[in-house]
Amino acid sequence: MSAEILPSWSDGATRSKIVGFLEQVDEIPPHERVAVFDNDGTILCEKPGYAQLEFMQSELRRRLEDDPSLGERSEFRAVIDRDRDALVALGLPRVAIALVELLAGIEPEEFDDRVRSFIAAARHPDRGVPYRQMRYQPMLELIAALRAKGFDVYIVTGGGTEFVRAISHDFYGVMPEGVIGSQIDYDVDHHDGALRLLRTNRLVGDPNEGAAKPQNIQRILGRRPIFAAGNSAGDAEMLDYARAAGGPSVCLLVDHDDADREYAYASQAATFDSGGSILDTAARSGWTVVSMKNDWSTVFAPS
Amino acid sequence: MSAEILPSWSDGATRSKIVGFLEQVDEIPPHERVAVFDNDGTILCEKPGYAQLEFMQSELRRRLEDDPSLGERSEFRAVIDRDRDALVALGLPRVAIALVELLAGIEPEEFDDRVRSFIAAARHPDRGVPYRQMRYQPMLELIAALRAKGFDVYIVTGGGTEFVRAISHDFYGVMPEGVIGSQIDYDVDHHDGALRLLRTNRLVGDPNEGAAKPQNIQRILGRRPIFAAGNSAGDAEMLDYARAAGGPSVCLLVDHDDADREYAYASQAATFDSGGSILDTAARSGWTVVSMKNDWSTVFAPS
Repeated sequence: MSAEILPSWSDGATRSKIVGFLEQVDEIPPHERVAVFDNDGTILCEKPGYAQLEFMQSELRRRLEDDPSLGERSEFRAVIDRDRDALVALGLPRVAIALVELLAGIEPEEFDDRVRSFIAAARHPDRGVPYRQMRYQPMLELIAALRAKGFDVYIVTGGGTEFVRAISHDFYGVMPEGVIGSQIDYDVDHHDGALRLLRTNRLVGDPNEGAAKPQNIQRILGRRPIFAAGNSAGDAEMLDYARAAGGPSVCLLVDHDDADREYAYASQAATFDSGGSILDTAARSGWTVVSMKNDWSTVFAPS
Repeated sequence: MSAEILPSWSDGATRSKIVGFLEQVDEIPPHERVAVFDNDGTILCEKPGYAQLEFMQSELRRRLEDDPSLGERSEFRAVIDRDRDALVALGLPRVAIALVELLAGIEPEEFDDRVRSFIAAARHPDRGVPYRQMRYQPMLELIAALRAKGFDVYIVTGGGTEFVRAISHDFYGVMPEGVIGSQIDYDVDHHDGALRLLRTNRLVGDPNEGAAKPQNIQRILGRRPIFAAGNSAGDAEMLDYARAAGGPSVCLLVDHDDADREYAYASQAATFDSGGSILDTAARSGWTVVSMKNDWSTVFAPS
């Protein structure tokens, strides 16, 4: 088995850990075979900026053509100018809500159409390829190997649920109900026996990061994962939830240590753990660190 | 086809409407084949009281054996005495939260175990049979017919998500993620790389009734149903959401008009529509009324 699956994973302790888990999975009841993957930075490149932020910027540019006065708003000005100091001063949540407001009042189907149009045309700022080619090939192989073993695969993302749903089937073979993310509230427009949902700029609950990830997994999925993959402090609680399930489990932490082929950057460990790097935390928590540099022979999906 | 499926449905306009819809479904893209069913009163008998309320009462009795002082609390006293006047005076939401509090602090797996134990032993107060035999046989046949046509079937209930999940696979073949209900919030207990979720007595958002049903369908499922079945004013928005999907759709309203074989009672139409009964509303809204008395040759599942 190990020769045929996971061809983009280099031999070593990480690949052996995964293959060993897959080989013992037949003993686990089928309904317990649940795997969860973070999206940005875990199965899709998140640098130099989230794909969702690029989409929001493209929406903003489109709206500015019709209404240049929008450019006077400080949040939008900072986004257009890619002014990091201004963005930090305003705070990401405030900027994000301002951008979300641009898309308030439309139906989810219309939002979905806009994301699909954006993704079909967009190119990655640094590499000039479609975002589909910014998927990590080894993680696609891992998703396929888990599915071949009867796993249900969910994407548990801090990004917007509807944004990720618009790409999840094409990118990962995941249906809309397989995406658990940050949720926008809907207004209900109801008359004459017809009902429409309209997006608002309000979040339902907290953004889907940190403790919200296991909470939303239970609320929405109701089955506990035994395989979890993430890359940042926002994934820590989800990894620990999977690890404490009781039986065999794998918790992967993708380490972005490959400046040549992708980007090299440290996860924001300090926000999760009081001391040391997230790699120290991983060692203490029993997570398996995936070195992009050493564990992956190929990084990006060819198409 | 019509002779073999839906054997417990009597010939007539209602059965013809459903069979006609099933015959044209092949032209609908597979991912649009989504059906939603309310639980209490739509696929399971809800009289003389909700199964979930019976469960809560049994939990209360169990706890009273250990701690008789609980009986001094007015909400619990009213439940134990089945004192309708006191229950009305206190208000159902206050009583419900008091009962939910009895189960705060336990993990979802433990809650699931308790519901399963209750359901395995419980008997319906009036009929003396297991709750499984209080499922409506025609609706089980309908669920099977929809699945045979490639539908994904969801239960969208005002009841607690976790309560219905504990019975949904055994009763309806629906996995936990196929249940969308009222959601209890979880506290997170996180230390030493292990994480547990613990039930609280707090609801997340509104109870899953009325407008919350289509909102939660979009948040959790992300696909719009084209088949919906309910029995009360709390299902109206869900039915209208399905009906306004654009293509062929069926919206069923179960009318409890069979005092001999089940119970005869009017849905609380007044809470939804300003004039007339919910049957008038159904006619205006383009819903199909299912007369339990006339449309069903058998009411309950044999086992």
